[in-house]
Amino acid sequence: MDPSRLVGVIGSRECDAGTYDLAYQVGRMLAEKGFGVVCGGLGGVMEAACKGAVEAGGLTVGILPGELPESANPFVKIRVATGMGIARNVIIVRSSAAVIAIAGGPGTLSEVAYCLQLGVPVVSLKSFDVSPSIIQVTTPAAAVAEAVRIARTTRAKPAKPAPDGDDR
Amino acid sequence: MDPSRLVGVIGSRECDAGTYDLAYQVGRMLAEKGFGVVCGGLGGVMEAACKGAVEAGGLTVGILPGELPESANPFVKIRVATGMGIARNVIIVRSSAAVIAIAGGPGTLSEVAYCLQLGVPVVSLKSFDVSPSIIQVTTPAAAVAEAVRIARTTRAKPAKPAPDGDDR
Amino acid sequence: MDPSRLVGVIGSRECDAGTYDLAYQVGRMLAEKGFGVVCGGLGGVMEAACKGAVEAGGLTVGILPGELPESANPFVKIRVATGMGIARNVIIVRSSAAVIAIAGGPGTLSEVAYCLQLGVPVVSLKSFDVSPSIIQVTTPAAAVAEAVRIARTTRAKPAKPAPDGDDR
Amino acid sequence: MDPSRLVGVIGSRECDAGTYDLAYQVGRMLAEKGFGVVCGGLGGVMEAACKGAVEAGGLTVGILPGELPESANPFVKIRVATGMGIARNVIIVRSSAAVIAIAGGPGTLSEVAYCLQLGVPVVSLKSFDVSPSIIQVTTPAAAVAEAVRIARTTRAKPAKPAPDGDDR
Repeated sequence: MDPSRLVGVIGSRECDAGTYDLAYQVGRMLAEKGFGVVCGGLGGVMEAACKGAVEAGGLTVGILPGELPESANPFVKIRVATGMGIARNVIIVRSSAAVIAIAGGPGTLSEVAYCLQLGVPVVSLKSFDVSPSIIQVTTPAAAVAEAVRIARTTRAKPAKPAPDGDDR
Repeated sequence: MDPSRLVGVIGSRECDAGTYDLAYQVGRMLAEKGFGVVCGGLGGVMEAACKGAVEAGGLTVGILPGELPESANPFVKIRVATGMGIARNVIIVRSSAAVIAIAGGPGTLSEVAYCLQLGVPVVSLKSFDVSPSIIQVTTPAAAVAEAVRIARTTRAKPAKPAPDGDDR
Repeated sequence: MDPSRLVGVIGSRECDAGTYDLAYQVGRMLAEKGFGVVCGGLGGVMEAACKGAVEAGGLTVGILPGELPESANPFVKIRVATGMGIARNVIIVRSSAAVIAIAGGPGTLSEVAYCLQLGVPVVSLKSFDVSPSIIQVTTPAAAVAEAVRIARTTRAKPAKPAPDGDDR
Repeated sequence: MDPSRLVGVIGSRECDAGTYDLAYQVGRMLAEKGFGVVCGGLGGVMEAACKGAVEAGGLTVGILPGELPESANPFVKIRVATGMGIARNVIIVRSSAAVIAIAGGPGTLSEVAYCLQLGVPVVSLKSFDVSPSIIQVTTPAAAVAEAVRIARTTRAKPAKPAPDGDDR
């Protein structure tokens, strides 16, 4: 796999069946287009995206908040155990060429905010709309099409941070 | 100082004069009421809040994204150098009995989101309004009154997280 | 790939030709036995292990200290950008079923210490000998044989940490 | 307090009475000389150093692995809750003008290794001897004298890291 081809999928660890299906389709279509999925590695939207990707033969990376690789959902192929709790949210964002947000709660919002801060493009599928730079879509196919287009053309690189960090 | 008496002040590292003055007054009034200020330790709102607190004889803690204590603004008394970039945002939130957000950009939004996720009360002074649980105020005096009331009565403890982290 | 099959390879980002060759052989043999390599993603020992693994068709994961995936060496397939500097050392350890240390300096020592603290088995190839629990070997073949034996039989799980962290 | 005046004290969270007394004396003497103590904020050596410092009127900073400020020992005045587990070890080191290691296990060794990697001077009181650059002493008074001398003259600044982190 081309190592630049990781797309982040973010959303809540618990979700309803409709949201689960959206995430499943997103994961599946990302894999079909040759992209890996990077996510938080837990349940709900994360599990659904991994399940879809794996069933289409794709690669999945879970950046886990917990201390053990075994805390990943069963569809995570590469289990990265951080032991750093929700501080790991920034790692998901930094490792993504683009991010697809699906529904979600405050944890998802923190990741969307990190995307905005670091210049990583966000596609929102029934998720947050807190900035005009977020691309709003209504279907999994549109979400994947936008993310793939971004990741293929030019990875939006974070502006070089100031010497003491990239606070804004 | 009573160790439970840290209030977080969050906002952008660059700000206009009006916002700087709001943050300065917030820092000053927190110190006058016996509370320490914890923040990201850099410029703008962070510097103004530390300046106000120090000039009123208060204690200031800077949780720095950078690698060196010397990256702190000159009004930070306790310089915590994380070297972890914006992943340090979650540390500011976890260490606060309550948080006052003043204006701000995406970095501030990530911290507000962490507050919502972890159950740390947020007071918004001309800042984000992304949840009904955020307390909206219009003056520094009101912001400090709300934060102090919260910190004095009962520290809003984060719900015990699930074994594999507190994702939601 | 079976997701439990990640072996950590640690060592300095700059090394002499002999050490580079040791690491290359370790990476190559791990891939031949079906294991992925997880490392710090930079040069020297890290690059050599990734090069060996990739040339044998294996999978490589780089847990980068820097802010950009592009900071990885060219043989890293999965680029995890932490932006957390050397705090990322603990992530490498937590994500490994076993760790092979090859020569190395203070950074490597911090990772060996984390292994000892978290109960992750360490195989030392011309590296540190600070505890009787470290398995000392003298060849890449022996290092890989030991690591594979450990990872195949039973992943040495870290003891459940105390509620406030796993300090010892 | 002069913000440059933080000395790190590291050691195990459980220790025998003799080690506890050594750490207590170190904390007490640091406070008497006007220095604050920064540590991991938990029990054993950390608690003893904080107790000594507080009883001599000093300031104590606890960089906690856990998620809640309440996980600190009762002698920590500034409670920094990281929620990042033992990844917080590097924060203790980065925030210290010098570090005093007292006895200790693998966690302490990881911190000593970080000191060596980042160029933060280490004084060892019945602790590790893994590098000639570590200053070996046999009494609390000697440990404090060395640490104070270092912190007063010139803070040993970490060498400017490479753009992609300070791995060595």
